[in-house]
Formats: sequence, structure tokens, C-alpha cells
Amino acid sequence: MAVNILKFGTSSPADTSPLKALKAAGYDSADILAVVGKTEGNGCVNDFSRTLSTHVWEPLVPDKAITIFSGGTEGVLNPHVTFIVTEKKPTGLQAAAGRTRPLEPHEIGTPEHAKEVASSVGAILNGAGISSSDVHLVLVKCPLLTSEKLESIKAISKIPATTDTYESMAMSRYASAIGIATALGEVNDLEEAMRHDTTWSSKASCSAGAELEDCHILILASDSKTEKPQIRAASTYMADAIDAGAILRILDRVKSDNGKVLQIFAKAEASKDGLINGFRHTMNNDSDIHSTRHARAAVGGLIAGLVGDTRIYVSGGAEGQGPPGGGSLSVFYTVAES
Amino acid sequence: MAVNILKFGTSSPADTSPLKALKAAGYDSADILAVVGKTEGNGCVNDFSRTLSTHVWEPLVPDKAITIFSGGTEGVLNPHVTFIVTEKKPTGLQAAAGRTRPLEPHEIGTPEHAKEVASSVGAILNGAGISSSDVHLVLVKCPLLTSEKLESIKAISKIPATTDTYESMAMSRYASAIGIATALGEVNDLEEAMRHDTTWSSKASCSAGAELEDCHILILASDSKTEKPQIRAASTYMADAIDAGAILRILDRVKSDNGKVLQIFAKAEASKDGLINGFRHTMNNDSDIHSTRHARAAVGGLIAGLVGDTRIYVSGGAEGQGPPGGGSLSVFYTVAES
Amino acid sequence: MAVNILKFGTSSPADTSPLKALKAAGYDSADILAVVGKTEGNGCVNDFSRTLSTHVWEPLVPDKAITIFSGGTEGVLNPHVTFIVTEKKPTGLQAAAGRTRPLEPHEIGTPEHAKEVASSVGAILNGAGISSSDVHLVLVKCPLLTSEKLESIKAISKIPATTDTYESMAMSRYASAIGIATALGEVNDLEEAMRHDTTWSSKASCSAGAELEDCHILILASDSKTEKPQIRAASTYMADAIDAGAILRILDRVKSDNGKVLQIFAKAEASKDGLINGFRHTMNNDSDIHSTRHARAAVGGLIAGLVGDTRIYVSGGAEGQGPPGGGSLSVFYTVAES
Amino acid sequence: MAVNILKFGTSSPADTSPLKALKAAGYDSADILAVVGKTEGNGCVNDFSRTLSTHVWEPLVPDKAITIFSGGTEGVLNPHVTFIVTEKKPTGLQAAAGRTRPLEPHEIGTPEHAKEVASSVGAILNGAGISSSDVHLVLVKCPLLTSEKLESIKAISKIPATTDTYESMAMSRYASAIGIATALGEVNDLEEAMRHDTTWSSKASCSAGAELEDCHILILASDSKTEKPQIRAASTYMADAIDAGAILRILDRVKSDNGKVLQIFAKAEASKDGLINGFRHTMNNDSDIHSTRHARAAVGGLIAGLVGDTRIYVSGGAEGQGPPGGGSLSVFYTVAES
Repeated sequence: MAVNILKFGTSSPADTSPLKALKAAGYDSADILAVVGKTEGNGCVNDFSRTLSTHVWEPLVPDKAITIFSGGTEGVLNPHVTFIVTEKKPTGLQAAAGRTRPLEPHEIGTPEHAKEVASSVGAILNGAGISSSDVHLVLVKCPLLTSEKLESIKAISKIPATTDTYESMAMSRYASAIGIATALGEVNDLEEAMRHDTTWSSKASCSAGAELEDCHILILASDSKTEKPQIRAASTYMADAIDAGAILRILDRVKSDNGKVLQIFAKAEASKDGLINGFRHTMNNDSDIHSTRHARAAVGGLIAGLVGDTRIYVSGGAEGQGPPGGGSLSVFYTVAES
Repeated sequence: MAVNILKFGTSSPADTSPLKALKAAGYDSADILAVVGKTEGNGCVNDFSRTLSTHVWEPLVPDKAITIFSGGTEGVLNPHVTFIVTEKKPTGLQAAAGRTRPLEPHEIGTPEHAKEVASSVGAILNGAGISSSDVHLVLVKCPLLTSEKLESIKAISKIPATTDTYESMAMSRYASAIGIATALGEVNDLEEAMRHDTTWSSKASCSAGAELEDCHILILASDSKTEKPQIRAASTYMADAIDAGAILRILDRVKSDNGKVLQIFAKAEASKDGLINGFRHTMNNDSDIHSTRHARAAVGGLIAGLVGDTRIYVSGGAEGQGPPGGGSLSVFYTVAES
Repeated sequence: MAVNILKFGTSSPADTSPLKALKAAGYDSADILAVVGKTEGNGCVNDFSRTLSTHVWEPLVPDKAITIFSGGTEGVLNPHVTFIVTEKKPTGLQAAAGRTRPLEPHEIGTPEHAKEVASSVGAILNGAGISSSDVHLVLVKCPLLTSEKLESIKAISKIPATTDTYESMAMSRYASAIGIATALGEVNDLEEAMRHDTTWSSKASCSAGAELEDCHILILASDSKTEKPQIRAASTYMADAIDAGAILRILDRVKSDNGKVLQIFAKAEASKDGLINGFRHTMNNDSDIHSTRHARAAVGGLIAGLVGDTRIYVSGGAEGQGPPGGGSLSVFYTVAES
Repeated sequence: MAVNILKFGTSSPADTSPLKALKAAGYDSADILAVVGKTEGNGCVNDFSRTLSTHVWEPLVPDKAITIFSGGTEGVLNPHVTFIVTEKKPTGLQAAAGRTRPLEPHEIGTPEHAKEVASSVGAILNGAGISSSDVHLVLVKCPLLTSEKLESIKAISKIPATTDTYESMAMSRYASAIGIATALGEVNDLEEAMRHDTTWSSKASCSAGAELEDCHILILASDSKTEKPQIRAASTYMADAIDAGAILRILDRVKSDNGKVLQIFAKAEASKDGLINGFRHTMNNDSDIHSTRHARAAVGGLIAGLVGDTRIYVSGGAEGQGPPGGGSLSVFYTVAES
């Protein structure tokens, strides 16, 4: 399915005025395949900005469309929504979306969770006729464990993946990422990958939220059959949180293509060993601000500075989404028709 | 006075092991003119990491040396100390340090405060024989208003500049910056500048702390009389928090000089109008994290990425230190002897 | 209008299941005069839990009903909603609700704001035939200044009451409280009271939120004409944040009436002089947690412990609502029919 | 060793003026057996207020004396220090102090840690001739895991108790508490108790800090041989965070003894099941404020209100120190000589 990408700033998590802007750009709400938003909450367990956006947007989009809201616009980042809309003619970019079945609370963050994501991603690719080698980004929004879910697990004598609600976000993201990596052929042994926390996909971008039970999945891929693609994609990974080189190399390519960046999707995290390039950082020892907030602010500052745009999708918690301490990076850009 | 710059990471605010590293590099504690550190507290009113560093370092440095600790190593930033040490032979860089008289609590953040800084900076420059046109950085550490100081002001029936302790940090920084700008000839009418909050110096870097009563002042300047300076300096300002261009222009100059960055001093702040390049940021509306912490994380991420080093001095709260929403930027670098 | 009070816990700010519980208790949604809730956000500027609750509840209540959501359930407090529902027969308790006109952003926190609240409260009392001497509680939810509102004020060259968004909440609450005090005859000179910040009402409970433009008003009063009231009310104030005596005196009265507490409405704040009973507290110097959050947690812990119930309405920011450092306190309780 | 208890407020973590107040009360620094303080940091991993107090106090007390600083004075609590000083004549209260050997990082929070505390407490009791049945309080300050310690464990191929620095505080407190319970005969099977997290002592009060390697231990006990004790002790536990009854019963006993409270030591925590008395609390789902901070604020508010004093020792994180969701409670009071 050929798609285009448009993005608009929001004045609050309840702001749906971007729909008007979308219509002014010539699209109808029926064209919406996905709404991917950054909202201004803490991006952690009690982030109700995500829930609020989900509440106001879901009635406005087609039933089959999905919404993915990622909390956290620390630092310079701008709260905004990105629309993935269908186009009648080929654009060079194609997309497909879907959902897993609802996960049982005790499945969250486990191999069962990863398998559900893997089979759903596989089914969506098959259904859309997209080759895994053309994929540049798989966005997943997945559930987390709240106190209530932990109690419901206890009530049926099951074992949760963790009893720490914040940690459950990380485990949920990792399971989703391993599912993606399995579906894309980046990982062969899912069970083995789930026993560690160091396997990764360079195309995965996962975020966890308390406001859903299933996983929402959005896939963006190049359309290799389009002759003169107007939209091109590039994906890579940042090796650590200050890897400006990875960003600059893609931006150089955009420049050499006379292109203009439509949107950047990046993952960010604090390295677990507490070091960046051999020097200590304090993100993991700060009991006032979670490390995901620190990482979004810093990596968001770097990418926004380099691309000159604060309306970018930088999401915290990169477990399995790029190398440890780094993160996956996908850039979509238009090229002028010659 | 000819000086050199050395910097070392710290394992905690109480870590004085950099003194050993300094000695291993051939210097003695008697050579220390200033210790300028970044510590890992919140950089706000109740940041005891600054106080702790002051406590452990002051007994170790010469009486006439000054210490300036700036709290806040959000995101990728590395807690570290930078030594300004005297050299016998010219290096191309000269420095001078001093203090104002203790400020009365009711003077903090007022024109009186600015005047004290102006006259002290002027006196230090005169005493050291440094021309104001050679100055690239004036670092000032200044006091703030705590609840206790507010009560002591009330007890003598004086009026504080503000009754909000966090806001007093901003007002203290602004007064210090206007003092610097006056001494350097960037501002002619101090009283007028203090009636607004938009006048600025591109050489000022001020931070406020609860642990002192006077202002500590450190001046770094080029020595225009040195024929082949090994250390060069460049100063400019970031126009906003994503002004990568300002940084890249200086780094290009360093590169063309075959230079190596010794240290970067930058100020950062959230723009008061809530916008960056026309798009909304949320730093001023976040009641969980103060805007100074957001700004340090974002600008620190940008500069650290571009220079490839997290041991940099990025300080929050740029009132009067660079244009609104931006900040002053000073870079010191060595050039290889030819 | 005769009313009853019922309260139910919520599982999240989006949880509207209390409506089912209300129906199970024999009431219809048409009976709802007001929904007064405590939601689990930070209670400060960027509290989207309030907005989310407003979004899910407003479509479910009658047009003339009002909703008041107060953020912040720090410590032991339970997120819940309290329904004020109309009864056909006299209960001993009567209520009336209404709204002011939308306030212009530059009016928020000013005498104009206070006057609007005063005249609206007066009109509501008149319309309902309630004597001001019977009033035990006036709840007001009022707007605050966000970055966007500050810019809109600037755009029309008006002056905001403050440029600090968090401080605007305090000023909005104070203006609302002075309006209430004026309407109830506790204050004679509104303009004079607005020049200071120390005048207060013992019946006022005001909270500010970014999600509204006008002020929502709910008045609860004894019905002195009912012969055998089943619901009784008592109101007083806590002199400081540890005034257990004020609470115990009311609870003793409930006990001597063989009563059972229906609901407690309390305001809490950190004393501005930084002292409680002569000893320093640190609520005003904590740059990681706003003082309103500290105060709700502490006073909530005290009241919940004494009444043995965590489903109580404790709201932070008591400017003008009780003496400085203390807060208004209203208790509603049923007495067994003899 | 006969002891007395004196307490004094502090103006900051660096304030040692209580030593003057102690001298004014007729004591010498050589009389100090222990300094037990509450400091105003976050009480979590990066609380440098504790480290700062340790730095300024340790040079001022005898070598054999111990210091225990517990961070966190949320809500109404007053930062202060409590001195345990030796008396020549019997007072009714006796004390003894000591330390364990330094714990290896990989031992923190493990059975090995618990055994070290158990054997040290046993040895201290033996050495002082104190019967375990007379003990009313065992205070322990124990180390935690920082990022650096986690890396040092990895470097020697050992397994840490947890890789989450904040969680390591809880595990360290639990191990210390089980050690105390074992030494006092409240627990028989230490290994078994360490396999769960629900065993507890009603005399234990443990706090963790990054600033030490060994465990500091202070024991307070009644002297049953004193005929007319001037100082009496009572210890019990709060069953949950709103258990006002437990506090009131002790305060009634103090009142009936015509006594005056010298000091209260209480532990507080958020119940893990997310409920208090059947109703949901939000302390465990708040990603902006750690649950220990919430619990200290709420329980501190309750106790301070009931005793009318904010200079009390309320410490967060009650793992193994009182029943789950509650906490140990020890009160020391003077009685007038008859």
C-alpha cells in the first residue's frame, strides 16, 4: 500500500487540530493508516498524556488504522503527530499495520510475547506483499505491567516477568524487538535471544504504554518496484548516545539526493554499563529522573540540532532496538522530481 | 598569568582523585588558579552535590584559587573537574580570578549585585593587565535566595528580588551577567539593562549556588602578545538551543588549525516564549523537571555529540549570557607546534 | 436542592465505572449535580490526568452538572470520584453549581477574576435560595496560565499576572478564594485583599487546571430548615500542616453524633516562611518535587490516618483557603436516624 | 552504657552547629556515641546530602562513634540530628554501637550480608552485656549498589543481587533487617527468610547509602536494672501506612506516664500490593517520585501531627522492618522524677 508521511505540531495531548491540517493538505480521515505521536508526558508508567491522545484520536481514525503514542518530549522536542496516509499512486514508500491478540498480563515481556509479535509482523508483511529486506522501520506499541495487572497475575497464581512496573516497560520493549528481529530474519533463535538482553534489530522501534492490552504494529518499507520514488528511506543505528556520525552520514545522503527529511524515527537509551565512550554518565543513578527521560532529551537534542527540526520521533528505552547504549535510526525523505 | 587547562572525570562529587592525576601530569596543587567542576546534582536550589564538592576541594587548593561548581550533568554529560593551572612560559592563554565582597541577601539579583560584579571584573582585569577585548570567558558563581535568606531579609524589613527560591537563581545569574557585560563594555547602561531581562554578553557564564555568599570570578583571555600560542580560544553564541551551526563553525576552525579541543564552556536555556524555531517545546510547562535540567540535557547532547566528548561544561540558566533561548559558547583548544 | 454524597475509587483517570456503582446504588446519571474527583497526576501545570478525567466524564453527566478534578494523590491517597447527587426529599444537605464566564488569559489571577467568582457565587446562592451562613464549602476549579496563554497575552499587548506557569496556579487559586470570601461576606474589600496574599476564607477550596477556561463552582450548604437532617456538615480550618487537633475536634463531634464520615474536603500548603511550629521544613527548597505535592502527601497522610479512609479530597495550594500554612477543612457525615 | 538522647534542627546538611547546642547542654563531643540524622536529599541513590553530612560530622565525633544519616525529609519533616550521648549515671536507657566488616559489592543484599549483620549485632550485645529482650531499636546504615559497584562486580565475574541501583537499596535494607531479626531471636532460619521478602523484625530500622562500604550499627535498649528510669522506651509496629492507632496507643502510654517524647523512630513503605485498607494507592506507579519519598511524606505527616513535632526520624523503605506495607516504630520518652 503506497503511503505518504505528514506531520503537525500539537498544542496539547488532547489537540486533534492536525486532522484539519491533514484535510487542508488534501487528505481525508479515511486515508489514515496510522497516527504516530509524541506526547508530552513522562513516557513512563503513569504517563496519562498517551492515554489522553489515544482517547481523542481513536474515534477519529478508521477502524483498521492504528495509533501509536510515545510519551516524552524532553528538552527541545516538539509534541506532534505524524500521519501515515495512503496514496493512490506509488510514492516509493509502502506501509502496513495490524495488531497482535491481547496479551495476558503474565505474558508481557516473555518469549510468548515475542512470538506473538513475530507471527503478527510476519502475517502483516505476507498480507501486504512486502519483502522483509525492504523494511526500514517496524513500530510497535506494547502493554506494560501496572500494579493492577501484577495483582491479577498473582490472583491466577502465574509469575510476572518482573514485579517492577517501570522495569516491565523495558522487558515489554525487548520482547517486541526480538519478535520484530525474528520476523525480519535478523534473529534465528528467539528463545535464545530472550535469555539475554543484548540481541537487537536495527529496524525496531518499540514503546510501552499502560493504555493498551495488545500490540499495535506499523511497518514502513521501501517500494523497490517504483521506478522514480519520490520518498526514500534509510535506516541504520547509533552506536552510542553521542554517535553524531551515524546521523550525519544519513543527512549527507539526503543532501546528495537533493532530498528533504520528512521524518526521523530514533531510539535512545542510557548505556547500562554507565559509560559513554569510556566516560561515566549519571543517567542510571538519578533517582529523580528516569534514565529514559535523560536519554530522550540528550539524543533528541543531538538529532534536532543536526536536522534543524524539533518535530522528530525520539523514543526512549532502546532494549533490543539497536546496540546496547545506542538505538535504531530510520529516516524518510522526499526527493525532488527531476 | 599564563595558564593551561586540564580536565579529569570524577567518580562522585566527593572524588578528589583528579588532584593525583594533575600531579601525575606534572603540576602541583600550588599551581591551581581555579577548579571548575560539573557535579551530578539537580543544579537547582537543593543541589548538595555542589556543596559537597566545594567542601572537599576548598582545603586542597591555594587560598587565592577559586572553585566554581555547577550542578547538573543531565543526559550524556560526564561529571568532571577542569583545572586552570599557571604555567611559567606563555601558552597563548591567560587567566585571572577573584571574588566580590559577600552580597547581602537583599542585594542578590539586584543592580547592586550587578555593580559589584562589574567593579570586581574590572579590577581583576586591571590587576592582571588583561585587555577586555582579549577576554573569551568570564565564569561567575553567585549566591541564591534560600528560605532562610528570605526570612533574614524579612527580619530586617528589606525587599528581596523575588520570593521564589528557584527564580532567585535566574535573577542572580542575570545580575552577574549584566555585571560582566558592563565590565567588558558590551553594555553601557547597567541600570537600564537590569530593568529588562533581554540584554546579554557572549562571554558570560554564570551559575548560582546556595553554598556561597560572595561571587567567585574566573576570567580566561587570549594572550595577544604570545607569538606562537599553543592554546587558542574562540567564543561566540548559540542563537537557540538547536544551533548546531554555531558549534560546527568553531569546530571547523579548530580542524583547520589542526587543533584539539581542550574544553568547551556553554550556556543553555529554555526559550521563554516556549518556542524553538517556531515550534513549541514543553520545558517551561513541565512541573516534574525544571527547564534548566531539560536544557542542559538537550544542549549537552548536541555539543557532546559534535565534539565527541562528554566531559564538557554545559551550564543551565543562560539569562543575560547569550541571546534569549540560546547561550554563550567558548572553546579552548591546543594547536600542534609546527 | 437536597443532595446526597457518594464516593467510589477509580482504577485510572479514564475509569468511569463509578457510574455503574452509582446506578447500583439507585441513582441515575440525570441525578448528578457534580463529579468531584482526585486524579493521580502531579496536580501541577502538566497534569493530563485531570484533562483525561474531564474528557471521559463530561459526556456522561447532565449539561448543567459540573466536573471538578483535582490532581495529586501523593502518599496514601486513593484516586476516586465523589458524586453530589440530587435527592427528592430533604437530607439536611443542599447544593448548587454553576460557572463563571470564560476568563481572558490576562484576567487569570487578577481582581477581575476574583470579581467574576464573587458575582457568580452570589448569583448561584441567590438562585438556589441558600443563605451564605449555611455554606460549608465552595469548591472552585479555575484556569491557569500555560506558555500558549502567556504568548496570546503578549500578542494583544496585555500584562499577565505572572509569567511563571506554576505560580499562575497559586494566583488563580487565590483570586478564586478571595471571590468566594467576598460572596460569603468574609471579606469586605476585594481590591484590598487582592493586593496582599494573606486574606482567607475557611470555606473555600480552589484548584487550577490547564483544561478549562471558565471557573466551575460547587456550593455545599446545610439545610437549616430540615428537621431531622441525615447529613450534617462541619467546617473549620487547620492552623498549620500538622494541626491534628482541628481534625480530631471534628471527628469527636461526628463520634458524639454517632455519625459516619461521608467525605472530607481539605486544603494543604507548605508555609511560605519555611517553618512549621518554629521548625524548618524543606518543601519550598525542593527543586525536584513541587511544594504542593509534598503538602498533599503529608496532610493527606495525617487526615487519612485519623479518619481511617484514604478516599478523601485533599487538595494542594491553599492560597486564601485557610490561614497561611494551614487550610480549610469541611466534613460531611451521616447520622443514624433515631 | 547509660545514654541520653538530644536532638537539634539543622539549617543544611553541612550544618554542624548542633555540636554547639550539645555543648551548651553540658556535653562534650567525646560523649557522643552516635549521630543519627535526617538530611534533606531524596533518600535514594543519588542523595549527596547524606554524604555531605557524613563528611562534615565524621571529623567531629570520637573514632568509635558512628554516624547514621538517612535522606529524605519530605512533607513536614524537619532536617535534624539526634545525639546519643553517654551518661555517667544510669538513665534507664543504654546503647551500644559498632560496625560490620566492609561488604564486598557482590555481597550487598545477600544472605552473606545478613549473616554479617547478625553476627555483628550479636557481638555488640554480648560486649555491652545487653539482653536481646531489652532491645527496642537496632539502627543500621548499610551500603547500596551504584553503577560503579555493579561494574566492579562484573569485572570479577560475580553476580550482583540486582542490577537496579534503586532496588539494591531495598535488598540491602532487607538483608540488614533479617540480620537484626536473627540476632534478636525473631527469626530462626536466616537462609529461609532471605528466600522470601516477608519476614520482619519490629525493632529494625535500616537505611542504605552510597557513602559507605560497611554497615553502621546502633542499638538502643532499656536498662531493666535501673530502679527509677528517667528514660523509657516502647516499641511496636504500624500495620499499614495509616495505622494511627499504633501511634496513639504509645502516645497514650507516654501521657499516662506523664512523659515527654524524646524521639520517635519509624519506618514507612508503600505496600507492594498497591492497596491500603483495600483501596488503591499510586505510590508504586509514580515514575516521577519514588515510592519511598511518598511513604516518608505520608507517614511523617501522620506521626508529626499526632506527636506535634516535626523533628522525628521517619525513614523510608521498610523491607523486613515491620509487616509489609507498615513499619517498625520505637518511641523514647522521659518521665518526670517523682
